[in-house]
Amino acid sequence: MDQKLKIVLSVRLFTDEKCFGPGVATLLHKVEQLHSLRSAAMDMSMAYSKAWTIVKNAERELGFKLLDSTTGGRHGGGAVLTAEGRALLSAYDGYCAALRREADRMYEEFFGQFS
Amino acid sequence: MDQKLKIVLSVRLFTDEKCFGPGVATLLHKVEQLHSLRSAAMDMSMAYSKAWTIVKNAERELGFKLLDSTTGGRHGGGAVLTAEGRALLSAYDGYCAALRREADRMYEEFFGQFS
Repeated sequence: MDQKLKIVLSVRLFTDEKCFGPGVATLLHKVEQLHSLRSAAMDMSMAYSKAWTIVKNAERELGFKLLDSTTGGRHGGGAVLTAEGRALLSAYDGYCAALRREADRMYEEFFGQFS
Repeated sequence: MDQKLKIVLSVRLFTDEKCFGPGVATLLHKVEQLHSLRSAAMDMSMAYSKAWTIVKNAERELGFKLLDSTTGGRHGGGAVLTAEGRALLSAYDGYCAALRREADRMYEEFFGQFS
């Protein structure tokens, strides 16, 4: 093997059912930028109904709301992250980043023999 | 949220293309037990042709063989792991286990607030 292996990690959170992973995390980041679940879905080339279902499933499993609807105002109906949604997204991002650092740190020990 | 979140990790190795992950690792463990790729595939309810393709793709990307064919003998044509196949499987298992320990260790710091 001429090249170093690249490690791809996927972190998913489960209660009884899968409730939070890379997909919903990306969706929430887009809502933060675009202040709308519809715009976030469109930006990810995802049907709005699918985005809505992903968020609702996650909220049901987690037991708290991730998004608050905003109505009226200059941009019409939109969405913002709840305080708990922001906290979970931040925890998830931090956890993935910390795990990534550990994964990189341990690479040589386990896979150095193959490079 | 009444229950602790369960963390599910997935570790995949890439060269340019995906080359090794949970699927091929399980397949190789089954070959170790059953001494046959056909039996391993059957045990995983996977078509033999699919198992064969997974192994061949991984070998091509990695640049070394994972399985050696064994012919004749009491069990007819079978398969065993090459030395490099055993070494990579062992490295992958060890890496996943070590990362799992880190993931568990870091859980409280990031997600303790949600339990």
